[in-house]
Amino acid sequence: MRVVQRFRPLAVICDLLCVAGPVDPAVQISRAFSQEFFKVERVPSSHKVGTRQKKLGSTFDKKFRQRLSDYLKTMASPEIEQHLAPLRASVKEYGDLVRSLKESGAPKVDIDRAVVELKARKKRLEERELELAPKEAAFDRLKLEDLLKRRFFYDQSFAIYGGVTGLYDFGPMGCAMKANMIDLWRKHFILEEGMLEVDCSVLTPEPVLKASGHVDRFADWMVKDVKTGECFRADHLIKNHAEKLIQLFPYKGCFSDALTVRAIFPRKVARAAGVGYVQPKDKKTSAADRDALVDVLAKLEGFDDKDMQAVIKKFHFKSPITGNELTDPIAFNLMFPTVIGPTGDFKAFLRPETAQGIFVNFKRLLEFNQGKLPFAAAQIGSGFRNEISPRQGLIRVREFTMCEIEHFVDPSDKDHPKFAKVRNYELSLFSACNQMDGRPAETCTIGDAVDKYNLERKQQLAGNGEMSKKRKKEVKKDMESQTCLAGNATSSQVWELGKGAVANETLGYYMVRVHQFLVKVGVDPRRLRFRQHLANEMAHYACDCWDAEILTSYGWIECVGNADRACFDLHQHYKATNVKLTAEKKLSEPKTVQVTEAVPNKALIGKAYKANAKQIMARLAELSAEDVGMLEGELRSTGKAVLTYEGGEAELKTDMLSVKRYEKKVHVEEITPSVIEPSFGIGRIMYAVLEHSFRQREGDEQRTFLTLPPQIAPIKCSVLPISSNLKLEPILEAVREQLAKHEISFKQDDSAGSIGRRYARTDEIGIPFGVTVDFESEKEPWTVTLRYALTMEQVRLQVSEVGRTVQDLAAGRMSWEDAQAKFPKFEQKADA
Amino acid sequence: MRVVQRFRPLAVICDLLCVAGPVDPAVQISRAFSQEFFKVERVPSSHKVGTRQKKLGSTFDKKFRQRLSDYLKTMASPEIEQHLAPLRASVKEYGDLVRSLKESGAPKVDIDRAVVELKARKKRLEERELELAPKEAAFDRLKLEDLLKRRFFYDQSFAIYGGVTGLYDFGPMGCAMKANMIDLWRKHFILEEGMLEVDCSVLTPEPVLKASGHVDRFADWMVKDVKTGECFRADHLIKNHAEKLIQLFPYKGCFSDALTVRAIFPRKVARAAGVGYVQPKDKKTSAADRDALVDVLAKLEGFDDKDMQAVIKKFHFKSPITGNELTDPIAFNLMFPTVIGPTGDFKAFLRPETAQGIFVNFKRLLEFNQGKLPFAAAQIGSGFRNEISPRQGLIRVREFTMCEIEHFVDPSDKDHPKFAKVRNYELSLFSACNQMDGRPAETCTIGDAVDKYNLERKQQLAGNGEMSKKRKKEVKKDMESQTCLAGNATSSQVWELGKGAVANETLGYYMVRVHQFLVKVGVDPRRLRFRQHLANEMAHYACDCWDAEILTSYGWIECVGNADRACFDLHQHYKATNVKLTAEKKLSEPKTVQVTEAVPNKALIGKAYKANAKQIMARLAELSAEDVGMLEGELRSTGKAVLTYEGGEAELKTDMLSVKRYEKKVHVEEITPSVIEPSFGIGRIMYAVLEHSFRQREGDEQRTFLTLPPQIAPIKCSVLPISSNLKLEPILEAVREQLAKHEISFKQDDSAGSIGRRYARTDEIGIPFGVTVDFESEKEPWTVTLRYALTMEQVRLQVSEVGRTVQDLAAGRMSWEDAQAKFPKFEQKADA
Repeated sequence: MRVVQRFRPLAVICDLLCVAGPVDPAVQISRAFSQEFFKVERVPSSHKVGTRQKKLGSTFDKKFRQRLSDYLKTMASPEIEQHLAPLRASVKEYGDLVRSLKESGAPKVDIDRAVVELKARKKRLEERELELAPKEAAFDRLKLEDLLKRRFFYDQSFAIYGGVTGLYDFGPMGCAMKANMIDLWRKHFILEEGMLEVDCSVLTPEPVLKASGHVDRFADWMVKDVKTGECFRADHLIKNHAEKLIQLFPYKGCFSDALTVRAIFPRKVARAAGVGYVQPKDKKTSAADRDALVDVLAKLEGFDDKDMQAVIKKFHFKSPITGNELTDPIAFNLMFPTVIGPTGDFKAFLRPETAQGIFVNFKRLLEFNQGKLPFAAAQIGSGFRNEISPRQGLIRVREFTMCEIEHFVDPSDKDHPKFAKVRNYELSLFSACNQMDGRPAETCTIGDAVDKYNLERKQQLAGNGEMSKKRKKEVKKDMESQTCLAGNATSSQVWELGKGAVANETLGYYMVRVHQFLVKVGVDPRRLRFRQHLANEMAHYACDCWDAEILTSYGWIECVGNADRACFDLHQHYKATNVKLTAEKKLSEPKTVQVTEAVPNKALIGKAYKANAKQIMARLAELSAEDVGMLEGELRSTGKAVLTYEGGEAELKTDMLSVKRYEKKVHVEEITPSVIEPSFGIGRIMYAVLEHSFRQREGDEQRTFLTLPPQIAPIKCSVLPISSNLKLEPILEAVREQLAKHEISFKQDDSAGSIGRRYARTDEIGIPFGVTVDFESEKEPWTVTLRYALTMEQVRLQVSEVGRTVQDLAAGRMSWEDAQAKFPKFEQKADA
Repeated sequence: MRVVQRFRPLAVICDLLCVAGPVDPAVQISRAFSQEFFKVERVPSSHKVGTRQKKLGSTFDKKFRQRLSDYLKTMASPEIEQHLAPLRASVKEYGDLVRSLKESGAPKVDIDRAVVELKARKKRLEERELELAPKEAAFDRLKLEDLLKRRFFYDQSFAIYGGVTGLYDFGPMGCAMKANMIDLWRKHFILEEGMLEVDCSVLTPEPVLKASGHVDRFADWMVKDVKTGECFRADHLIKNHAEKLIQLFPYKGCFSDALTVRAIFPRKVARAAGVGYVQPKDKKTSAADRDALVDVLAKLEGFDDKDMQAVIKKFHFKSPITGNELTDPIAFNLMFPTVIGPTGDFKAFLRPETAQGIFVNFKRLLEFNQGKLPFAAAQIGSGFRNEISPRQGLIRVREFTMCEIEHFVDPSDKDHPKFAKVRNYELSLFSACNQMDGRPAETCTIGDAVDKYNLERKQQLAGNGEMSKKRKKEVKKDMESQTCLAGNATSSQVWELGKGAVANETLGYYMVRVHQFLVKVGVDPRRLRFRQHLANEMAHYACDCWDAEILTSYGWIECVGNADRACFDLHQHYKATNVKLTAEKKLSEPKTVQVTEAVPNKALIGKAYKANAKQIMARLAELSAEDVGMLEGELRSTGKAVLTYEGGEAELKTDMLSVKRYEKKVHVEEITPSVIEPSFGIGRIMYAVLEHSFRQREGDEQRTFLTLPPQIAPIKCSVLPISSNLKLEPILEAVREQLAKHEISFKQDDSAGSIGRRYARTDEIGIPFGVTVDFESEKEPWTVTLRYALTMEQVRLQVSEVGRTVQDLAAGRMSWEDAQAKFPKFEQKADA
């Protein structure tokens, strides 16, 4: 059980959606069931989709053989929709149930139970969608992984020492690709949006992360083998054991449906629904125990340590490896601890996110921006999370590169000046509402999505909603509250409001910019969607959150979180430090306020406290009216008063200060800004791009290649001499000079292989362009051929034109068609 | 006492050379003496240099008022040389003494004592050189620091939580500057030299750093206050106390001379040399104690924990803060410890350098390079060192960005193919020889420096050196040894050989490239030198090391270490993992070797071990001849034998393998490559560049500006409307569009200040170019003025030309003179 899910936005979804690959023991049981299920599954052979399905179904037997869904395409087919309709209905049923439970104020445990069921049905629907994906979406992960390892894109760290799970080293290819992505990110966001970039410390003192909530809540529950000390995630262990004991088996429908229908309804209902039990292998599991365990599975997500402990005790769960007893659940904090300095008592952690570094610098950044809101700060850097047992390659790691933006904005005005420019940009939005209704993601302009929100909100305020009286009152109160959340919708409102609507223009603007970035770096837009958080996924303070999810062979992976975090973080750091993290906002009309001020007698204080006088007077200036009053009272009654200031304590006497009271017109008010945060996991995006760009040549499946966008490709150009004849060397030298002059990264391959084999080698690592020096090259003026990997077409051009041409092609200033129009075509005998 | 100094190349020099600024208590005593000394010092007023000197001397009273030396210029003046001559002679005296002691095989303690004295004299000489620096080198560090903080280049991390020493956050200016430097580094080294860039984990398991020597030796000795737990560096504490007790005071000559002459010679000799004692304040210090303490100071550098403990016990040294007892010296490892995973027993550290990540990936990188030597790998990333009490801003920090190159090369052939191109490049070389002779750094071509080495080496091998017989024999043995050091000179040879000579072409080539890089990013070449390590500074395995040192107000700071690390690292990791980290080298003629091979019976092993058979056969293939022999013996005597392999143990039977013995001609031999390592501390270089580019406008000292090279400047261009009149907005928009289109970072300043004040604001942060939109701009076609901050000159050009022009200027493709020739000059009334 993840104690608080909100702190790990990048790590949640794949847990749910992982369909295969190496997994921990906790999910092997359900894997076995899935495989069984897929074998039983038959689709009529007359059915076109079915034929594909059959072929695909069989691939599940091969361990790493995976499929990719061409999601939107799939959705467009009525045949497939026919298959999905019942599943969609089953999701909607529970979406409606959850809504009515909430509406009627049902107990939390009932709602949670219903949400668990809702999620299971959603998952089932999604899996089915993936199963029905067309054949061209098939994808061989093993082949890609082999390539990435062999050509050293990345590989496990410290392999010669046995390796460490969750740590990866990027080789020359991966490193250049990552650097190119970050470079593009910097241009796309920091430069184009005029953001303030910062670079903060990884080492973070404990109090900072205490304030942010990470020390207390960034944890998983864990149990240990009492003898070996081996660790297990408590929720995984319970799920594992419980499923084994229940031994539910579907003879109609599917496993997850059976399990969850049973979780909600009594045995009879389940039978009626066509779901039954197989005889449990372990005869000792009584029907009563079984029912209790089903109940546990339904509630597991909401369990705390005591609940889990009770289950482990009651059912005598042991270590699945040794059979030994287990400890009570311990909260295992996912941050890496360390200490700063020699004494050992200055506790610190490696930062779990870069965001906190921006928040603690808010004042400096605001000042840098000359006190004006809105502004955005950004940071590119490493984050660290001590996962209990990381798997899934770059998807879940212990050390990762993040790019985070914190956009600070007036909470009562979240409009964005550039929103008009993107208003008609279309996104695939998978709203909370559609998720609950079992409907797929929908394509919609961002303008419409934001308008819808504003419209609904207006209607609600006007009392036209269909809420209960109580809810209406609550929402109204939230809306009008003068707390730091003023102007934000709170999460409870979103539950009502955010059905496919994006909460404000700034959030919407960033969603568009995120989409543009992802497509630019090579994510297939058809496998990209924005999924809105359901109310129980969202942090308690956030008012809207849309994850950019990318479909890979691991399922839909969250790669960019886009959240409106309201003022939570700044407020927490203010509470911890008493340093005001606010901005000044001009009032529409001036306001009269009462001022109580301590006026120091500078001469006397200076004489008494010398070097410390300045600090003392600064402290006096920042006292609140109340403090001044207390000080005054003390001086009056005793003739002296103690003031605590940065440098120590000072005893003040009556003649050292006077108190002034007066009225003042103020033209500004202090506000705590809201924060809109897009947060990028670079490694995940990189992996998704690699999957999406991985291709096999038609007719030669062994020959794979990567269609990376030239801007992202680790190497832009290959240089290939047709033979090792030394007379080609001066021409090669001229080509290399051309490329170096234009700052183009290139790789010369003068190995002995045939030119075709060498082309294949360069295509394999996604080098988009290739210059070949052949025997025709020698004729003055020297010429070479230029090849485009994607189409394998070639043109012939002069050496002196090579640098500029490849530079323009690589930067996207020239298309391959342009190059073909400009230079004569070169025909080759055979490219293999 | 730093237990092993070699691991901290970046942190050594500034300790010695720091002349003022906040310091720890350990050096305050000697500071007091220095100040006294400077006050007494008088130079005849008729003397030009002296006049300056007097003025400068007085600035030592102001706490942060610092001077910068224009080093080479100073050296050129005969007047100054006259002042330095006696100091130079005093250094040479000890250089000669050290040599003769070494030559005569004197005991180590005597040599160490003489080296301590040599160093003290060197320091004194250097300080004097700085004192005699011309006035224009005066520099106000306080002003620069204020600027860097105020405009948020960087500042202490977590300031609102009280801050953490040694941790800094880079704001928008510092972050962009750092990113630009790294970008340039990547182009200058990785792209132009075709290096393999990697990006490895920060988290590093203990065994890796055990092998590299960091776990055992990357430490400082520390003592703790037994009551408060306060920590002190043991060597600092002893030095502090001892100096206090000795209370030596010079009445002729200077403090350090007096102290160190006394350290070597008996009291009478010191008296004769014109150095005497003042009466100690603490009358209890006997003459015997005093002599013992002088001896301690001389030997301190070579002390281990027991030596230091004995001193502390003997003289009853207490905590200087509380007077409490102290613990025994504890080795305080400077790495940050943490644990990976949930069990708590997987110990790890944050990497103290990025180099190890490259070494552990050597095999993959070699393979990536198709098995060929030489090649270079590079890494840009964070390093972490848990300093006991860091000071001096960016010079000594706990978290820092490093750029490291590991160039792997055949140890018997360290020539570099591009060396001919740089042979005539001149560097300022401060050789070990010159350091020992009290001579300054010399300008010399790198070609000559390398030639000299080869010449000397040849002579030595021919027996023409003036070494003792014993030494000659040792050197010869080293030279001819067939160990992994073959072809490397060892450190003991360097002691003899490396007098101003650079050990090989590859090291020399990198020194030139490092120099070119540093000048490109804005280091003043006159304040840049390469200092060769003295024999006792160098790591025991390194055969030559030249630090690029930059002169700043903190003294000469080591910013880039350039070392020939031989094969130490690869060899250590091989020893720890048993994974061969070697390359294959073609033999000039084939060699015949005996082969003993275990030939498996694949069918039988496959049948018996199924899935594990592959691993077992792989293990058999890698057995040594000896192992095969043992296996054979066991099989013969017992009919079975146990083989340990990756997957476990296998029992092999007689029929499962046969043993084959034959002769083989081999064409390659295995070699462990040598490593040449340039290692950059980016923060230090950045600070040096900021100091070197900091200027005050003539006639207006309050108006400071930075003359950063445009490629490094955080922001390339400012955009300034002459008024807030709305009709200028369309022109401003057009300018911004031009700049954005050409990817130029810019900042618009439309604050209310006068145009002159806004120019000053942009100059202050080193924005090299400024576009001003004035009322003339409106005339069609729109024009604006373009201003060059360095000269404050302006030209007028069309808005449509702005983007390309600023882009070319910023990239160095166009000079300001070119721009002036191309566009009409614009004269302004007053720029203030």
